[in-house]
Amino acid sequence: MRSAFAAFCMGAAALLCASAAYANDDLIKLMKDPKNWAIQTGDYANTRYSELNQINADNVKNMRVAWTFSTGVLRGHEGSPLVIGDVMYVHTPFPNNVFALDLKNDGAIIWKYEPKQDPNVIPVMCCDTVNRGVAYADGKIFLHQADTTLVALDAKTGKELWKVVNGDPKKGETNTATVLPVKDKVIVGISGGEFGVRCHVTAYDMKDGKQVWRAYSMGPDKEMLVDPEKTTELGKPIGADSSLKTWQGDQWKIGGGCTWGWYSYDPQLDLFYYGSGNPSTWNPKQRPGDNKWSMTVFARNPDTGMAKWVYQMTPHDEWDFDGVNEMALADIDVGGQPKKVLVHPDRNGFTYTMDRTNGDLLVAEKYDPAVNWASKVDMDKSSKTYGRPIVLDKYSTEKQGENVNTQQICPAALGTKDQQPLAYSPKTKLFYIPTNHVCMDYEPFKVSYTAGQPYVGATLSMYPPKGETNMGNFIAWDAGKGKIVWSLPEQFSVWSGALATAGDVVFYGTLEGYVKAVSAKDGKELFKFKTPSGIIGNVMTYEQGGKQYVAVYSGVGGWAGIGLAAGLTDPQAGLGAVGGYAGLKKYTSLGGSLTVFSLP
Amino acid sequence: MRSAFAAFCMGAAALLCASAAYANDDLIKLMKDPKNWAIQTGDYANTRYSELNQINADNVKNMRVAWTFSTGVLRGHEGSPLVIGDVMYVHTPFPNNVFALDLKNDGAIIWKYEPKQDPNVIPVMCCDTVNRGVAYADGKIFLHQADTTLVALDAKTGKELWKVVNGDPKKGETNTATVLPVKDKVIVGISGGEFGVRCHVTAYDMKDGKQVWRAYSMGPDKEMLVDPEKTTELGKPIGADSSLKTWQGDQWKIGGGCTWGWYSYDPQLDLFYYGSGNPSTWNPKQRPGDNKWSMTVFARNPDTGMAKWVYQMTPHDEWDFDGVNEMALADIDVGGQPKKVLVHPDRNGFTYTMDRTNGDLLVAEKYDPAVNWASKVDMDKSSKTYGRPIVLDKYSTEKQGENVNTQQICPAALGTKDQQPLAYSPKTKLFYIPTNHVCMDYEPFKVSYTAGQPYVGATLSMYPPKGETNMGNFIAWDAGKGKIVWSLPEQFSVWSGALATAGDVVFYGTLEGYVKAVSAKDGKELFKFKTPSGIIGNVMTYEQGGKQYVAVYSGVGGWAGIGLAAGLTDPQAGLGAVGGYAGLKKYTSLGGSLTVFSLP
Repeated sequence: MRSAFAAFCMGAAALLCASAAYANDDLIKLMKDPKNWAIQTGDYANTRYSELNQINADNVKNMRVAWTFSTGVLRGHEGSPLVIGDVMYVHTPFPNNVFALDLKNDGAIIWKYEPKQDPNVIPVMCCDTVNRGVAYADGKIFLHQADTTLVALDAKTGKELWKVVNGDPKKGETNTATVLPVKDKVIVGISGGEFGVRCHVTAYDMKDGKQVWRAYSMGPDKEMLVDPEKTTELGKPIGADSSLKTWQGDQWKIGGGCTWGWYSYDPQLDLFYYGSGNPSTWNPKQRPGDNKWSMTVFARNPDTGMAKWVYQMTPHDEWDFDGVNEMALADIDVGGQPKKVLVHPDRNGFTYTMDRTNGDLLVAEKYDPAVNWASKVDMDKSSKTYGRPIVLDKYSTEKQGENVNTQQICPAALGTKDQQPLAYSPKTKLFYIPTNHVCMDYEPFKVSYTAGQPYVGATLSMYPPKGETNMGNFIAWDAGKGKIVWSLPEQFSVWSGALATAGDVVFYGTLEGYVKAVSAKDGKELFKFKTPSGIIGNVMTYEQGGKQYVAVYSGVGGWAGIGLAAGLTDPQAGLGAVGGYAGLKKYTSLGGSLTVFSLP
Repeated sequence: MRSAFAAFCMGAAALLCASAAYANDDLIKLMKDPKNWAIQTGDYANTRYSELNQINADNVKNMRVAWTFSTGVLRGHEGSPLVIGDVMYVHTPFPNNVFALDLKNDGAIIWKYEPKQDPNVIPVMCCDTVNRGVAYADGKIFLHQADTTLVALDAKTGKELWKVVNGDPKKGETNTATVLPVKDKVIVGISGGEFGVRCHVTAYDMKDGKQVWRAYSMGPDKEMLVDPEKTTELGKPIGADSSLKTWQGDQWKIGGGCTWGWYSYDPQLDLFYYGSGNPSTWNPKQRPGDNKWSMTVFARNPDTGMAKWVYQMTPHDEWDFDGVNEMALADIDVGGQPKKVLVHPDRNGFTYTMDRTNGDLLVAEKYDPAVNWASKVDMDKSSKTYGRPIVLDKYSTEKQGENVNTQQICPAALGTKDQQPLAYSPKTKLFYIPTNHVCMDYEPFKVSYTAGQPYVGATLSMYPPKGETNMGNFIAWDAGKGKIVWSLPEQFSVWSGALATAGDVVFYGTLEGYVKAVSAKDGKELFKFKTPSGIIGNVMTYEQGGKQYVAVYSGVGGWAGIGLAAGLTDPQAGLGAVGGYAGLKKYTSLGGSLTVFSLP
């Protein structure tokens, strides 16, 4: 596999391979070896790309199921297993069980960890009881439970090594995300934007779980870990009290800006990247101002938490267009120049290509033609509104006002993309993005804050764009140009994470339960298989015993599948998802399982 | 397929094909066509044999998963789907949902039926919340729910046509079995032997659900539908009050003898066959007498319910050796003579070969060498104990007495075989029997009866025979000679039903989750695949679009898997199953799904 390593280090993850000295050496080494799937995101760069090529565009049609494993938990299965050597680590939604499976023995169970959690956390989780998976580093498996308990387990035995509590579900603080292990720290986010949680990112010491730093999304500069002079937005210092100035009174204290997305890390720049979510409440009238730094890309130093740069994509959100989606790091040409970029397909329907070294905005274009709430992002550097979306009054729920049902806003609250992570192939230089093709009616209303109670302040309903029936597309995106290269319509949102491989195949799952393999070049369908339940997990790949495997969780749910997952029937329930996705019940049923494929 | 029909009608099911006029014409026709799997038992004869041979001993190794379907229900999945034409009917354990799936569209859901049942029925079910599947006849799907509600659904739409209640869960009356559709009737049994239920078999009119007759397992002759003069046992009339005379006082009123097994039917003889279960309580000291007609094979007329003959295998049960296991009907040679036989591998460790025309006992031999509670069945027609097992005092829980822990009794209470049905191939003339290889310690104790409360009266623990580790075997049985032809050891009980095909392949599932295909001739393993969860369902096959498929439910549970299924940990819990099967958790986890195989 040495040649594969070499190829890998010259490809997408060159930034990773060059810098083992900066980060957790063991994990870096494991991530370099494409036999493993050592981190949820495939690599620190969040490319979900594998150098494995035993399964390729010519032979993927012969792929068949090698073995399967039921997780014993119903409801939505997001994330994916990890593979380290001959062991696979499988996680479940609440109650967040973790299994270590023996890959040399058809997935026999080496150990199982079953956390005890108060089931009262379930009603505090906005959008199903999902969890996006465990992380590995330093011989430990890190599990961030729904109740915000962060646990370190001995990877060999499953024994608890330490535990720390990151938040309080009684205040609406929960977790659905994985964690980012960097150097000697574990960096974690938090959820609760629909409960008025003031969200933050926190680093814990990998050794003992001691808190190292915490950076809020909003509030006083010190609590946000921003430097008024050194932290920049679009090249300019953000200045003192950059957040406080954009909120009315103390509203920042219940301001949201949650941090439950996929994080990426550039070891050379020693910066990690993530986005913050919606400001609370969803009723824009109730919180005047830009509500900084909700809806923002953050670039922070992992040792200190200090922000190098920020960029707010959707100031004063009026649609729940959380900015939490992943930032994929790649080296591509933009406007004929090689750039170290960060590519971020936002919930708001624009994909942003930024210079990740300094936060310069290079490209911001719609990645679904249906997007209508803004005409464009203002790219005129001399403009007062530079970098801001140009919002159309017709779709401004602020302008339309409280108790007005603003119709046909595209995308819907769950965005042109939500948690479903993209993949990037350094061979094609394309970004493969699973998307939603969904619009909404949105009616804000006055809501008062009570700790631990929903603080949503809007009702909505979601549906495909007028005159269309498909609610999703799987697209190939040219991030240098900001253009769709090809687009595959899907009946429902593609809520599954993609995988790209050196075999020139791209994989994704559908809410009906299909795993699909398509040509990385032109999107031609090469393979499809119906798994036991709808797929909202992320496709991953690994090699074991000389054979390449492709694996994915089934288990319908998540925001798009909340109607099925939680047995809801009122069309407006599930924050509007129930109505639009009601047709899902014609195709699939609940059930968590893993399906593992290989060539015969 | 005409030639296949012809071959079929000359094979095992000749009795079926000759007699379409006697029974439900539509169903008979559907059963004749091996493209369908029109009844849980494969055919009325309970042979679980298919004339399909596209998948055969040579190519079964190439079999791969064609598609999968999650049922959305955890816990034990017994039974199998039905296939009628292009539609598959899938059922679940409690809450007993039923799906109609479109085979032309990868199992998309045509309709789903979700009965509303009081969850209080769950604690009244002795051995997991299993259900052994729906039946089809007359354009209707018949579902017998856990709460004993029998529902007729329109097979095309899933709409309720009629409903009738067969028992009362408040008294411990529940259901786990499928139903037998015969002529214009649906014949159903009932469970509750661990709750002092006096069990019965009942016929309902297929058209409207009106009760036609009911035959109790014990009590006055009239209520049992026996004729003292005409109903025989081993050739002799049973005489008046044959049951009442074998019980102390009114004990027959809470006498058990439940009727939850697989029924078979011979259209030529116009007799249906089933067995009755244990007498209540499990403490033999508390109920002196033979406790007739518990533990009995019944041959009854489906129109009147009248019993033609009976045979009690285990008089005065001391071990919970229910007689409910299936009777497979075949025409084989016994002692050089062609016989119309009924082959019944009993829980008590003996397989009985009987002349099904008159109830003559032809062969009764141990089908597991571990069986030790009886030395043999007395086959001396002149003996006073003719037809009775010769019980060893050492293993008699009656002789050892109350509050004495009698050890190393083989088989354990769950028998050398339990519900897991055999298959029979008319090509090899062998019976393929999934078995348990399990012994027990059994301690009876005094118990008093309260309606709806457990009336067990014994504690037990189960484990493999001394010095051995395997808890199951899959055997080929020569029923004419009463001999094991070959035996495949399995780590756990084979709790899955077998399938034999004209392709000379026999299929079964394991509690760890493997589907295995072995040579019908010598048992050589030809294929194995690990499904998502442990298998206690029955393998079935069908043809659709010119292709043969093999399908099976995964979903660990049942009595053997009750520890996993219900999350029990005390070794003696689950009527002793938890301790013996504790190792199962190293291999599998809960989850109900269907895996469908075909050749590439």
